[in-house]
Amino acid sequence: MLVNGKPWRTIWAEDGGQAFGVIDQTRLPHLFETVTLRTLDEAAHAISAMIVRGAPLIGATAAWGMVLGMKEDPSDAGLENAYRVLLATRPTAVNLRWALDEVRAVLAPLPADARFEAAKAKAEAICDEDVALNEAIGENGLAIIRDLLPKAPKNRPFQILTHCNAGWLATVDWGTALAPIYKAFDAGIDLHVWVDETRPRNQGANLTAWELNSHGVPHTVLADNAGGHYMQHGMVDMVIVGSDRTTARGDVCNKIGTYLKALAAHDNGVPFYVGLPSPTIDWTLDDGVKEIPIEERSQDEVRRIWGKLDSGDFGWVTLTPQGSAAGNPGFDVTPARLVTGLITERGTCPATREGLAALFPEHARS
Amino acid sequence: MLVNGKPWRTIWAEDGGQAFGVIDQTRLPHLFETVTLRTLDEAAHAISAMIVRGAPLIGATAAWGMVLGMKEDPSDAGLENAYRVLLATRPTAVNLRWALDEVRAVLAPLPADARFEAAKAKAEAICDEDVALNEAIGENGLAIIRDLLPKAPKNRPFQILTHCNAGWLATVDWGTALAPIYKAFDAGIDLHVWVDETRPRNQGANLTAWELNSHGVPHTVLADNAGGHYMQHGMVDMVIVGSDRTTARGDVCNKIGTYLKALAAHDNGVPFYVGLPSPTIDWTLDDGVKEIPIEERSQDEVRRIWGKLDSGDFGWVTLTPQGSAAGNPGFDVTPARLVTGLITERGTCPATREGLAALFPEHARS
Repeated sequence: MLVNGKPWRTIWAEDGGQAFGVIDQTRLPHLFETVTLRTLDEAAHAISAMIVRGAPLIGATAAWGMVLGMKEDPSDAGLENAYRVLLATRPTAVNLRWALDEVRAVLAPLPADARFEAAKAKAEAICDEDVALNEAIGENGLAIIRDLLPKAPKNRPFQILTHCNAGWLATVDWGTALAPIYKAFDAGIDLHVWVDETRPRNQGANLTAWELNSHGVPHTVLADNAGGHYMQHGMVDMVIVGSDRTTARGDVCNKIGTYLKALAAHDNGVPFYVGLPSPTIDWTLDDGVKEIPIEERSQDEVRRIWGKLDSGDFGWVTLTPQGSAAGNPGFDVTPARLVTGLITERGTCPATREGLAALFPEHARS
Repeated sequence: MLVNGKPWRTIWAEDGGQAFGVIDQTRLPHLFETVTLRTLDEAAHAISAMIVRGAPLIGATAAWGMVLGMKEDPSDAGLENAYRVLLATRPTAVNLRWALDEVRAVLAPLPADARFEAAKAKAEAICDEDVALNEAIGENGLAIIRDLLPKAPKNRPFQILTHCNAGWLATVDWGTALAPIYKAFDAGIDLHVWVDETRPRNQGANLTAWELNSHGVPHTVLADNAGGHYMQHGMVDMVIVGSDRTTARGDVCNKIGTYLKALAAHDNGVPFYVGLPSPTIDWTLDDGVKEIPIEERSQDEVRRIWGKLDSGDFGWVTLTPQGSAAGNPGFDVTPARLVTGLITERGTCPATREGLAALFPEHARS
């Protein structure tokens, strides 16, 4: 997507693949800075320090980390070491392990002196595949927006609400939930995005607002409390969110607070869509509320917040009184009954077992 | 309620009524400081600078401001001047005008040299009446908590979720939504409160958490996004919120985000109660969503947040990227169909026209 009028991806080769570059996402939205990663350890650090985040981008970064590992030591021992170092950065990230397995499977049978070039080719392929997947989600979501447009008031832009960041910053390009929005904007549709700030980590205010701003998409940041009120007053035509994990019957696990927006959308007849790449569907699960364990994250994410000080420096402020505990569930589950449709790379389906099985028959259980 | 083991009100006479004291609520939750107000202008500033806030406390402060006005100039001109200066501090505050009218009605017929003592007596009476009203709400809410207790799991404290601050800091003592919680805690009921931080102004984290902390009530601060998840998992036994304005049929206008919690409570069978003093019922309104205009507040309340810097100083940080607009509706309306009951000083009733009319027959329209 565009930054200062120039197209960017979140990750790119430098020096003919001797290094790669990423956007330092810890500095957004206040500073747009890139980092060149030249060693395996630098790549690992970029993941563990959350310079890059978002499941697809973590996978792509790990693949490029393998390239640097092969530059340093293409032996079998070097291959295993690179795999191990990168896997340890975020042990629970599914895409991380998937990307590492993909690259290792290509490299392991090869002689050492062929591994660096093969790793580069595989890393490039993983990145390009992610872009193609997200672009397909974008096209499928664009078709839904075109369907909904005639039902929206004509005297204002088409209004889409989103929660958290499922944008191009979380992927290699396009994003998942935001891909349909970029496709619609680029197609000239007059639209406006309500951006939930998404406490406690504020990925909406920090990342989604920055993305939309950089690409020129009109948007407004909201406290997470506000969306229901705007829906009651007919000011939201559609909700699109991402998904960290979707069950076989269509329950959607996503950033904490998604469920509340789904309830409000349902109560006000606002279509609620989820943009998701099929690898995030967990075909082994049915009842998301009962079966998906929800990570309880650090209290300090609620107690403290980071931003730009009036001095121009960056810093943290403490929000809660000394002695008050904080609760911090990272995700919640939106039951399928509240979801209008699931937008995947293969098309859009109802959030039902039958809907998903029709799009992905190879996974359907008898 | 208690602070450091000592009972406090939010407002009290000093020097035999030559002055009065308040808690400086702009410094909470990080500093507990009191301010002595000795002049009419100081009293007016305390309201306009939000050193005091909350409708009942604003009314009480205005009444005490009239006392200081009479100390300075008890003439008819002085009386009108004090009324005018205080009314201008927060022109839309209903309780402010009500308290000023009450005091002026007492003082106007009196000779000038009797006005100071009469104003003191009236201000004390207004404060005591507020305390009595809230205590009655507390007792009525306590009865509901006792009814619900047997239905809650026995292996953990009774769990109550609240939004924003409708506590003793917003009143003279006890609060409205929090009065039942204090009554229950003081009665020895094992309870725990989930405190929504309540973005954008964070009255939950700043004020409710501080109040509960000071009185010793166990509690946990949550991002506003989290409550629905806890309700899905059976970790909330009851919701109690306050109300800025309630319609004759029981629609509840309260701090932005209340509606989302009401939806989640309804979806999970969690009782949703509203603690409200009857003066906040607007008998002229029916459909709250359609009829109550919602104030759009400053964008900066969303863009920036105040807290304690790591240096120990206090300061603001900017959260959103330059160029991103922010939306900031101050309140939303929870339709009566989502409200389990309205807890008033006269008792608890269903959120219906008939329920309210039965408790307040003098207001019922034929």
